[in-house]
Amino acid sequence: VPISQFELIDRILVHLGDRVASSIVVPPGDDAAVWRPDQPLVVAHTDTLIEGAHWTRQTMSFADAGWRVVAVNVSDIAAMGARPRYILLTVMVGPDLTEQEVDQVVEGVAASRRVHDVQVIGGGVNASATTALSVTVLGDAAEGPPPPLLRRDGARAGEAIAVSGWVGASSAGRELIRSGRGSPTSDALLRAHRRPVARTQLGMAAAAAGVRSGIDVSDGLVQDLGHIAQRSRVGIEIALDALPLHPAAVSELGLQRASDLALGGGEDYELVLVGSASTLEALATPELAVTIIGWTVEAHPGEVHVFDVDGMRYFPPFVGWDHLQARAAGEVV
Amino acid sequence: VPISQFELIDRILVHLGDRVASSIVVPPGDDAAVWRPDQPLVVAHTDTLIEGAHWTRQTMSFADAGWRVVAVNVSDIAAMGARPRYILLTVMVGPDLTEQEVDQVVEGVAASRRVHDVQVIGGGVNASATTALSVTVLGDAAEGPPPPLLRRDGARAGEAIAVSGWVGASSAGRELIRSGRGSPTSDALLRAHRRPVARTQLGMAAAAAGVRSGIDVSDGLVQDLGHIAQRSRVGIEIALDALPLHPAAVSELGLQRASDLALGGGEDYELVLVGSASTLEALATPELAVTIIGWTVEAHPGEVHVFDVDGMRYFPPFVGWDHLQARAAGEVV
Repeated sequence: VPISQFELIDRILVHLGDRVASSIVVPPGDDAAVWRPDQPLVVAHTDTLIEGAHWTRQTMSFADAGWRVVAVNVSDIAAMGARPRYILLTVMVGPDLTEQEVDQVVEGVAASRRVHDVQVIGGGVNASATTALSVTVLGDAAEGPPPPLLRRDGARAGEAIAVSGWVGASSAGRELIRSGRGSPTSDALLRAHRRPVARTQLGMAAAAAGVRSGIDVSDGLVQDLGHIAQRSRVGIEIALDALPLHPAAVSELGLQRASDLALGGGEDYELVLVGSASTLEALATPELAVTIIGWTVEAHPGEVHVFDVDGMRYFPPFVGWDHLQARAAGEVV
Repeated sequence: VPISQFELIDRILVHLGDRVASSIVVPPGDDAAVWRPDQPLVVAHTDTLIEGAHWTRQTMSFADAGWRVVAVNVSDIAAMGARPRYILLTVMVGPDLTEQEVDQVVEGVAASRRVHDVQVIGGGVNASATTALSVTVLGDAAEGPPPPLLRRDGARAGEAIAVSGWVGASSAGRELIRSGRGSPTSDALLRAHRRPVARTQLGMAAAAAGVRSGIDVSDGLVQDLGHIAQRSRVGIEIALDALPLHPAAVSELGLQRASDLALGGGEDYELVLVGSASTLEALATPELAVTIIGWTVEAHPGEVHVFDVDGMRYFPPFVGWDHLQARAAGEVV
């Protein structure tokens, strides 16, 4: 007799629910989770990682996939400047997923939710032809006016653009894994791909400091910035030589490829913030750099332009990731 | 060039967002949705419907599947006695899903969200090897003490058990579809399977009337009642001849099969409520029957016993649905 759906749910909840916060009114296991938000606004986001599309057995372990599905969801709450609080976890169990691999997923989720300081309040398990992990993350935020949130439509012309950490490190790591290369110096890149950490503290600090626009680097820096440019009706200009490239990405792949991955590789889950240069620079900490990489302009509203060190327009070979088009192009399993 | 992920998301949101409530602070299209709850407690549930496991092209249309993924999620909020407000919708696009079929899904979601009075505030689109629809539903509820919620652990011995509408109608409809049978009298059964309506008003009315325990009939009546028996540490006794069987189910499949489907078929999305008989009976309306089918007892805590008209214990051939075990048994594609 295989494990039952309900046994598996219980097992997942035992591993994940090491404490119950006083704000949880009805804990996991009822028809729905119920909690009392600490702040007047509630924030929600959902994202699904599908084996074969978002990861493969070659690129990472199931524990890494469990880690990532929490991190990539929390990252979107961080990108609002809000505080992540709870997650609902859905495990779609493919026919070839073993119980041990389910345990590895749970182990990765457990480690990630601790680091990201969120609790699992619900979810479920389904049999599926494809293994996939889905999370809904819920958080809260203070009220305004204006609400201290990082919105895609909150940028104005004449502001600076900054990014946290390194950009392109995750996709450089993915490229090294796929090519079977890698060396001691590339460990940090592999880790950036497999174990990203959402920038929750930075997002909340930015919102509290008056920054009003931001996004996380998920599909690709240029494409993600394009959402801000379009929704805020501003132009965006990026200085190619200002991008904070990881030294290992440059040494392993060369400056050109490392730059292109920074512009279009995605999956860094760093935050891009738009605000006054002095405010943005003050957000840097000893642990996390914040680098100014460009500015917003009144010209070319809705468009992101990249300039090289000579001030010439640079056209990156790819600007980001689109799941449906990637499949059509044969890039998705 | 195939449709892009972002075009598809925009198209979905245009179809679904016919108005923006004043409580929505940040509408769909940002990193996360933000809203201001009307009540102090927030309620959340997520459920995924997977083609081949939860439905097939034979059993229903893509519009039906879109309708159902909203209904089955809202049903869990109804089963808490809370008010559903918002949904996040994730469409996992399988390789054989056409744009027209995606439009049918959206059409079904749109019709269902109107009937269920919820708004789409976010979500996304992914390429996947399997078509699946995932919804997270968010609602709110008043505070207590005690909070007016229908909890699985809220039943006490000596209470009556009631169910809304018909039980077994949905699985009778599924059985008729699969066997290729069906007649004019079976239309109501097919509709019960393809277009269930969550009992939101009943759930809220029950909670407001002081009912403290309930669940929706999703996996199977006996199995679902088992969750209440186990979490409330009460015994549950059900009178077989009290079950509200749909007349068409009895005429199409016979009394025995209709009864067994009522006990174990699931997917009715009716509400089971536990409370005083007079309170439960007062919840019936001209549109929706509420039938007392049993009672809670101190004996056999955690167990659900079914008795026939002669007072003899009846052992149903199946008590409910377990996705992982169903696949192991070859019942899931």
